[in-house]
Order: sequence, then structure tokens, then C-alpha cells
Amino acid sequence: MQDKPRIAVPHIAVIGAGAWGIALACAASRSGARVTLWSRSPVPEGNRILPRLPGVVLPEGVSVTSSLPVQADLTLVAVPMQTLREMAPKLRGTSPLVACCKGLERDTGKLPLDILGEFHPDRPLAVLSGPNFAIEVAQGAPAAATIAATSLDQARSHVGLLSSPSFRLYASDDPTGVQIAGAAKNVIAIGAGIAMGAGYGENARAALITRAIVEIGRLSDALGGRAATIAGLSGVGDLILTCTGVGSRNYSLGYALGGGAKLADILAARNTVAEGVATAPALAESARRLAISMPITETVAAFLAGSLDLDEAHRQILHRPTTTE
Amino acid sequence: MQDKPRIAVPHIAVIGAGAWGIALACAASRSGARVTLWSRSPVPEGNRILPRLPGVVLPEGVSVTSSLPVQADLTLVAVPMQTLREMAPKLRGTSPLVACCKGLERDTGKLPLDILGEFHPDRPLAVLSGPNFAIEVAQGAPAAATIAATSLDQARSHVGLLSSPSFRLYASDDPTGVQIAGAAKNVIAIGAGIAMGAGYGENARAALITRAIVEIGRLSDALGGRAATIAGLSGVGDLILTCTGVGSRNYSLGYALGGGAKLADILAARNTVAEGVATAPALAESARRLAISMPITETVAAFLAGSLDLDEAHRQILHRPTTTE
Repeated sequence: MQDKPRIAVPHIAVIGAGAWGIALACAASRSGARVTLWSRSPVPEGNRILPRLPGVVLPEGVSVTSSLPVQADLTLVAVPMQTLREMAPKLRGTSPLVACCKGLERDTGKLPLDILGEFHPDRPLAVLSGPNFAIEVAQGAPAAATIAATSLDQARSHVGLLSSPSFRLYASDDPTGVQIAGAAKNVIAIGAGIAMGAGYGENARAALITRAIVEIGRLSDALGGRAATIAGLSGVGDLILTCTGVGSRNYSLGYALGGGAKLADILAARNTVAEGVATAPALAESARRLAISMPITETVAAFLAGSLDLDEAHRQILHRPTTTE
Repeated sequence: MQDKPRIAVPHIAVIGAGAWGIALACAASRSGARVTLWSRSPVPEGNRILPRLPGVVLPEGVSVTSSLPVQADLTLVAVPMQTLREMAPKLRGTSPLVACCKGLERDTGKLPLDILGEFHPDRPLAVLSGPNFAIEVAQGAPAAATIAATSLDQARSHVGLLSSPSFRLYASDDPTGVQIAGAAKNVIAIGAGIAMGAGYGENARAALITRAIVEIGRLSDALGGRAATIAGLSGVGDLILTCTGVGSRNYSLGYALGGGAKLADILAARNTVAEGVATAPALAESARRLAISMPITETVAAFLAGSLDLDEAHRQILHRPTTTE
């Protein structure tokens, strides 16, 4: 009797049934994989619509569970950045882990893969990041993103598992640059929102985004990231989407702030996470520690902390000395 | 008797009273200069509102004329790209000329400074470009742009003359990169508009803009431009504004095309210039001549020429083989 042939359909686990987890489950299913989507809150049997993305019916290939899956060919970790440390030790099994959250840990300034690496030093680690509004990815509208791992072969293998005609993935071997870009763009999006909410206009926003690319590049460079990453999908691409798209939580939070709303009131009225609020002080602290000039990040962090008013923030960002580009 | 002291107030001539010429005149006036704005059509004496930017009252420092000014400390040439060759020989005097139009000459593929240089080989030449919607600049909302000349000192001197707190200028010595970026962004904006008008969504647009940066960089590099320029205000900054701002003529033209409108009908209904329509074939031709891959530009040019339908354009841009970033 011959050995049973290896099962050809890959199994992808998605941890976290927030909007992005649901979207990733839909996208992974379109790549032909069998998908298990883990939801912290139990989901009634047969329920194909989940609360965090109510416009989407889960495809047939996705099963939902509230017991953490152990075996998978690939595990996508799509929990919010600030809960990653709590979730990390619960991720059993040996599959490669792909961090799908963006930000820095508030108290430590650590990146997603730093945290996963503390608990899983022997599992292959990667990060997925790009200009991706969850609802569009869930609905199968065309989108692109980067998967980065220290090993390019590893990244390519994940790309092979997850890509589909509507969700195009690019392999990268610069997980540091991808993570820095993903963390910083939410902070900059708050800044862009503030500028628009305060009525400074689209020219000012475009200039702010462009100058932000320079300061993000400086930090990434200091940590070993590559300039091409900041210019790519997870850098400039995601900045563009987050700073101009009406669907961005961070941008819309900034917009409300720029219009005069109080941060506490905005946060109290939301049940979603704007990662940039927690990441801003951690990012500004990282920049200070490394003696890197990140004036936009500093200004957003100070404004969120209440130590700067709008006029002063405007002055700090827009009235810096003229220089060469 | 002592020599009369040199008059301290600089005189800036602005050639062309389209929306951008009017805006530049307002901005130059805010820098403290005396400004002469040349309008092809005669403007009645005392008329302080011009037809191409009807929401704006000209500041006191701006005088309007329809005789071409001869003496000035600096001449800003703000006529449409496709009329630059007709205007260039009429620009008398010896002042430095700053090209303020964006595009390639349709039949020759030449850049603005190539054309000015044919007629004025002995005058200093520069280019001004950045993420600038005319109406916002005219109203004094904060904006930034790049002035590039072969000599950085020359660029810095123009920056000194034109900068004001609301219009921040950066000096550059890469006029080639600045001109290529300015030309290409209008073509890409048509592509971004088509994608949005056809309903592909914001993720697709962000991915398209990001991939466009790569192909614009390739062309600029081949012509001697610098990568940092493409990443800067006149590159990424202007791309962001033009591809996402509702006020862009090129983006809105693309949006209408993506929704199924005919190019001839859109052009017939407008009295403004969408530079990308004439620049697209010239840019695609330059890329072919230099054997540089510019798939988005090629696709937009073919779509505008009617040799590609929307489905095929979509397929060409979004379904290219997956690769590394």
C-alpha cells in the first residue's frame, strides 16, 4: 500500500475576528486554502456574518471557532497591537507566524515580531502589511500588500500560499522596514487628519505626508530597514491610503481632533482601535532614544498628550526653516 | 551726490493668467515682491478678479497687464505645457526663467526646460513644481513646493525671492527629476481616476500610485534624475495630491472615463487643460525609446488612444506576475 498523498489544500489559521482578521480570512480562502478564523467571542453555529464587518458573508472555505487552532500551514495573527503580548503565548503549534497588526507596543516600543519572537524563538516569523482597507479586501476588490521575513524564501512561500488574483502579495526580506512603516503611518494619519480637520487644505496634507516619508525613512534606516521598503506598498502605499482614505480610523480621529473635538470624547464614542494613539508616544520615544529627528511624529504625540495646542502644532510643522530637499 | 540705493523690492513677472499663474502671482506678492501678471486676454482696468480663478481677489501688490513685461528679477512661466513653445520666443529680457508647467511636449517629448533652453540658451533656467492646487495657494493656505535649477545657488536665490510663511519652497539641483515627476504624475492621476471611477476602490488606487512611483523613478534615473527627487514634494507629494484630491483635472477626467464616459465628450465639455492627455503618449514613447518598463503609463496611454478597453486595462495593471518589492 502506498503512502497517502500529502493533502494539497493548505490550511491557514487567522487569529482574531476583528475587521482585518475577517478580511484576511476571506482573502486566504480565495487563494484556495482551507481557513480557520479564531474569534475571541464565541460565534453561534452557522453564523456567517460577524459583528466587526457586518457587510460581509464569510465564504464557504472559512470556518469560525473560539478554540485556538493548533495545526496549520500558516498562522496569521490579526489581533490589535496592544493585545499581541497577551495573545502570543497562546499560539501553540509550529506553523510560521505572520504578524498582521501595525504599531509599537506602548510601554516598550517593541515591534510585532519582537514580541512574537520572545515567545516563539524557533518558529519562522513574518509580517504582512500594505494599503488595505479591510472591507475592500473582504469583498475581493483588488489590493496589494507586502509579506516580509528575514528569509526571502520564507516570504515567497507565504506569498505563494496567500496570493490570489484580487489580493496580490509581494515578498520582501525587510521585516524591520515594513514594521516601522506600518507603525508610523497610523501616527502620520492622525497628523494628516488634524491638518484637514483644521482646514489647512489638501496642499498642506500632501506636503505633510511627503515630509513624513523622510522622517519614517530616517528611523527605519537607523534600525536597519531599507529605503526601498519605505517607498513601497507598506510604506508610501499605506501612508497614502491611511492619510487620504475616508475609511481610516486614525485619519478620522485626527480629523475630529483638528475640528476641535477632545481625544477622550472621540475614544469614548468608538468601539474600534486607532492604533496611532498608543503608537505615537512610543514612536516619539524611540526617535528620541536613537537621536533621530521626527518632527511630525513628535508634534502628533505632543498634541495627543495635550501638551501642544493646534496653533502651536501648526507652527511647529509648517514653519520650520526652509531647506534643500 | 551719492548713488541712488538699489531698490529693495524685487519684481517678479508671472506669464499666464490661468489658475496657476494667478495663484503664483498671489503667492509671490505675499513674499513681499512687486508682481506683474501677464494675461493673454486684455483685462479691464481696475478688474481685480480674473476669470480663471473667480473666487480670488488679487492682492494689492499684483498688477495685471497684457503687454509682456521685459524687466523683472525673476520670470515665472505659467502657460500650459503645449503652448510653451509658442510663448518661449516672446519672453524678452534677461531675468532667470522659472518653468511652472508640467508635462512633455506632445510631438517631441521635450521637457519644459528643453524648450525654454532652445530659445534662451544664456538665461538661467529653473522649474517650480509641487503638490499645489491653485485655489489653495491663491488663498494663502499652507503649501510647499520645490524649485530646481542646475545650480543649487540659483535655486536657493529663487527660493529666497518667492518663499513666504504660507508657501514654503525647497531648493533642488535636480531639474530633470522634478520635470519628469511633474509630467508623469498627471498621467498616473488619469490612471488613478480610471481605477476609482470603475469602482476598483481605494486599496487598488494606493497600490497603483505606489507602483507608479517605481516606474517614474526608472525613467527619471535613466535621464539622470535623482531618486530622492521622486520621493519628494514634486514626486510623491504631487502624485498623492493629484491622485486623491477631488480638485485635480486629470484625476477627475480619469474618473469620468472609468465610469464609462468618452474622452472626446469630456474634453468638449471642459475649458481647462488636463495636461496628462497630451503627455501620456509622449511619456509612453519616451519610455519605449529608452527601453524602460512603464506599464501603468503604457496602459493609460493605450486606454486614452482607444486601443484598450477597461477590462483589458485592469488586467494589464493588476494581474501582472507577483514579484518581490
